[in-house]
Amino acid sequence: PGKKVLIVYAHQEPKSFNGSLLKIAVEELTKQGCSVTVSDLYAMQFEPRATRNDIVGPLHNSEAFNYGVETWEAYKRGHLSKDLVEEQKKVQEADLLIFQFPLFWFNMPAILKGWVDRVLVQGFAYDLSKIYDGGLLQGKLSLFSFTTGASKEMYSKEGVSGDIRYVLWPMQHGIMHFCGVRVLEPHICYAPENVSEEKRKEMLAAWTQRLKTLWKEEPIDCSPEWYFK
Amino acid sequence: PGKKVLIVYAHQEPKSFNGSLLKIAVEELTKQGCSVTVSDLYAMQFEPRATRNDIVGPLHNSEAFNYGVETWEAYKRGHLSKDLVEEQKKVQEADLLIFQFPLFWFNMPAILKGWVDRVLVQGFAYDLSKIYDGGLLQGKLSLFSFTTGASKEMYSKEGVSGDIRYVLWPMQHGIMHFCGVRVLEPHICYAPENVSEEKRKEMLAAWTQRLKTLWKEEPIDCSPEWYFK
Repeated sequence: PGKKVLIVYAHQEPKSFNGSLLKIAVEELTKQGCSVTVSDLYAMQFEPRATRNDIVGPLHNSEAFNYGVETWEAYKRGHLSKDLVEEQKKVQEADLLIFQFPLFWFNMPAILKGWVDRVLVQGFAYDLSKIYDGGLLQGKLSLFSFTTGASKEMYSKEGVSGDIRYVLWPMQHGIMHFCGVRVLEPHICYAPENVSEEKRKEMLAAWTQRLKTLWKEEPIDCSPEWYFK
Repeated sequence: PGKKVLIVYAHQEPKSFNGSLLKIAVEELTKQGCSVTVSDLYAMQFEPRATRNDIVGPLHNSEAFNYGVETWEAYKRGHLSKDLVEEQKKVQEADLLIFQFPLFWFNMPAILKGWVDRVLVQGFAYDLSKIYDGGLLQGKLSLFSFTTGASKEMYSKEGVSGDIRYVLWPMQHGIMHFCGVRVLEPHICYAPENVSEEKRKEMLAAWTQRLKTLWKEEPIDCSPEWYFK
C-alpha cells in the first residue's frame, strides 16, 4: 500500500494476452493501494533509436558523435530530450518496475530495448564505478513478465531453445542488476497462443494470484549460478 | 571471390571505431572480389518498431492485431512494407551476414533488434517446423562483430559481467541458428574507448587480418556446450 509501480508495456494490441496481463496488474496493484503508472510504448509511439535528437542544444563533441558520452553530459546538464526526462522521472519514483512484453527473438521487442537504451543513461542509472550492487537505482525492485511463442519444453535445458534462464541473463543481470535494481522471479506465460482458452484463463488467474503476495517475495540471487547452475 | 556479403551496421557516427571496422570489412571483402552490401541502419533511419504499418493493405484479422500472424500472412501474399521487402532481398542474396554494432545492455542496439524483429518474419526466415537446423535461411553464414564498453576481464567467467558467451546465446543461437544460419566465431573488440591509440590500431589490424582468411573458417558448434560449457 502506497508503493509506486511503473509498468513498461510493449504490445500493440490491448485485446492481446499481454494486454490482459497488463490490465490484471494495473487492477490488482491499484486495489492493493499502489500507485500504478503505465508506459504503453506502442501507444506512445516511443522512439527506440538512440540518436543525436536525444540531446537538446549543442553537443559536447560535434566532431564525432558518441551516444554514451553525449547523453551522460546532457543528463548532467539537464539537456536530455523531454520524452527521456519523463521516463526517468517515472523510474526514479517507482519502487517496482514491471516489464510486460512478448519475447521476440530471445529478448525484448525493439521498442522496449530502445526504452532501455535511451532511458537508463549514465549518470542516471549507473556511473563510472557505480554498477551492479552499487548501481544508482538501488532500492528498487524489478520483474520481467513475458509471453513466449515456444513451449516450456522447448525452453528447457534439454530443449532446442535451451533453459529459459539463459535468455534472462542479459535482461535481468545485464540491465536491472547492472543498475543496482533487485530482480524478482520472472513471470513467464509459455505459448499462450497455442493452448486452450481454459489454460489461458488459468495463466491469467495465476498472475492475479501472484500479485496478491508480490510484496512479500524475496528477490532472486542474481548471480551466474541462478542462470547457469 | 564472387561471394555476397550483407553487413547490417548500427552506429550513428562514421568516424567511430565501429565505423572503422565497417570500412575495413567493406574494403577487404571488396578487394577479395566479394560483392558487399551495407544496411546502414541509422543513416537509413530504419524503423525498429513492429507495427501495423508493416502490412500494406487490409489486415488478416483487424479485430485483434497479432504482429506475428499478420506479417506471416502479408509475407505469403506479398503485402509486407517496401523497406522490409528490400531487406529480405538483401538477406536472401547474401552468403554471409555480418552484424557490426556496439553492444548496448548485453545485446544489440534497439535499431538493430528492430531489423531482426521486422525482417526475419515467419515464412521468410523460418516456418512452423522449419527452425534451427531446418530453418529457411540454411546455407548462409553469419558473424557478430561488436565493440563493448566493459573490459575483457569484466566479461569473463569470474568477472562481474560474466562470460561474454552468455550474451551471445540469444543473438547467435536464438536468432541466426534459429533461422538455420551457421555462425562463425564472433569478433569482439573490448572497450576500444578505454585503450591506447596503438591498441586500437592493433584491433583494427586484427580485423583486417581475420577477414583475409574468413572463408576458410569453420562455423562454431552452436549448441549450449559452446556457450555454457
